[in-house]
Amino acid sequence: MLNQVTIIGLGLIGGSLARALKQQQFAARIVATGRDESQLRWAVENGVVDAYAMDIVEACTGADVIVLAVPLGAMATCLQAIKPALQATTIITDVGSAKASVVAAAQQVFEQIPENFVPGHPIAGTEKSGVQASFATLFQNRRVIVTPLTHTQERAVNTVRDMWLATGATVDQMSVEYHDEVLAATSHLPHLLAYGLVDTLVNLDSSEEIFRFAAGGFRDFTRIASSDPVVWRDISLANRDAILEVLARYRHDLDTLAGYIERSEGEALQTLFARAKRARDKCMKQLES
Amino acid sequence: MLNQVTIIGLGLIGGSLARALKQQQFAARIVATGRDESQLRWAVENGVVDAYAMDIVEACTGADVIVLAVPLGAMATCLQAIKPALQATTIITDVGSAKASVVAAAQQVFEQIPENFVPGHPIAGTEKSGVQASFATLFQNRRVIVTPLTHTQERAVNTVRDMWLATGATVDQMSVEYHDEVLAATSHLPHLLAYGLVDTLVNLDSSEEIFRFAAGGFRDFTRIASSDPVVWRDISLANRDAILEVLARYRHDLDTLAGYIERSEGEALQTLFARAKRARDKCMKQLES
Repeated sequence: MLNQVTIIGLGLIGGSLARALKQQQFAARIVATGRDESQLRWAVENGVVDAYAMDIVEACTGADVIVLAVPLGAMATCLQAIKPALQATTIITDVGSAKASVVAAAQQVFEQIPENFVPGHPIAGTEKSGVQASFATLFQNRRVIVTPLTHTQERAVNTVRDMWLATGATVDQMSVEYHDEVLAATSHLPHLLAYGLVDTLVNLDSSEEIFRFAAGGFRDFTRIASSDPVVWRDISLANRDAILEVLARYRHDLDTLAGYIERSEGEALQTLFARAKRARDKCMKQLES
Repeated sequence: MLNQVTIIGLGLIGGSLARALKQQQFAARIVATGRDESQLRWAVENGVVDAYAMDIVEACTGADVIVLAVPLGAMATCLQAIKPALQATTIITDVGSAKASVVAAAQQVFEQIPENFVPGHPIAGTEKSGVQASFATLFQNRRVIVTPLTHTQERAVNTVRDMWLATGATVDQMSVEYHDEVLAATSHLPHLLAYGLVDTLVNLDSSEEIFRFAAGGFRDFTRIASSDPVVWRDISLANRDAILEVLARYRHDLDTLAGYIERSEGEALQTLFARAKRARDKCMKQLES
């Protein structure tokens, strides 16, 4: 058992990680820090963490593992702030949804990226935000991706892997670049499309009326448009290039689809829909198995 | 209690309607017809309907209400086929997701659209198809829209309304044109975007790998891409103009969004995401209340 894990940013992800690690007794102490003291106090009172400190150095001192669970835009500031608390053996990891930008932030802060820094990303979440929405089973049967660099120490990678395995997740390893491509396609693009759809409807003349007739399909399709705007602003900026690439492909494909409808090409539409349905059904079967 | 309701096309919608009407004893007999005899036989054996006939005229003879629950592309053929069974008092309705095309089909078949024809549309469904997927509570707390024409008889509208009320739905009335605009925005566009997203991902080089990392957001977002390709081909063709209009707005808005990302305009992104989140959260609160 480790002595201490410190979580910086106790929201949905940080809070759920804290709960899972406490349940599994992964460390003797789970400590948190963040900007909102009332949230941190709530977390201690409700057994989410053992202690908190408003001072980030104080919270990180003595930690075996420091987890940065803050929006991507805050990574550089946090890395800078924890510097005084770091020892040679302190393992650092993060939960950011884009990895190249976190690596760039570490590069900028440390010049030489620490050998104990393991970029990570749990593919889990809900559209809710805040520690009150956190729960210990959030990561169960979910995938966590770690993207160690060439000089990252094996020992650090193993500890971060063990931490996520303790939450019930499975852990995959891949390159920073590949992670960012995959996530742009499977997560970032859908979020942008959902936000975009709701915003298009908001701007229609009769939008109030229109939302009244939204049905289950709309509800599911737009669930992710209820996600935290700051988090998604940061992801959009941080994974800009990979997002723009897959978004360009999507816009091109949407032009093709619009062309089929314009020209009433029923067969082409049916072929496209059937191909998408097959792929989606197959994907879901694999996820369930 | 009516004597007989005949349902043409016993799939998810037709089957669920049959189950609900039988439970509520809305008619003495629920009769079905369709193309697949094994499905119809299964439906009788499992108490979904009281009887079936492969011959459409036979199935419709003696019906007080005939419900066309077939894909939009089959409406004209079915309307033509039921002609010999119609009496002056026979009420006809349908469940098509676009209404102008059904009205056009009726115009074409009957020249003068019957006074007892009430175009209708239950806003309910799942991504599953077929009578085996049907269930009696599908329409509970859902909205059904009826779009009577100026010369449609009040008595016919009332009977169709009572039928849907019996299933637990609420019934709204609006014009054909308005229905088609609203549904293009809230249902047809989301379906096209979801099919389009899955298809874009299918065409990526590493699509097999990519689907492995699809998470909950993707699952919800693309659920509707598992819908029946024939049904959605027909809807795309039938509601072409309204779909193209809202699709054009969406593509324009997506271009704007892509521009924000290209130029790293964080504030504009956050404003857009926050506006969409507010609208979506408000919409869901209304749907739940």
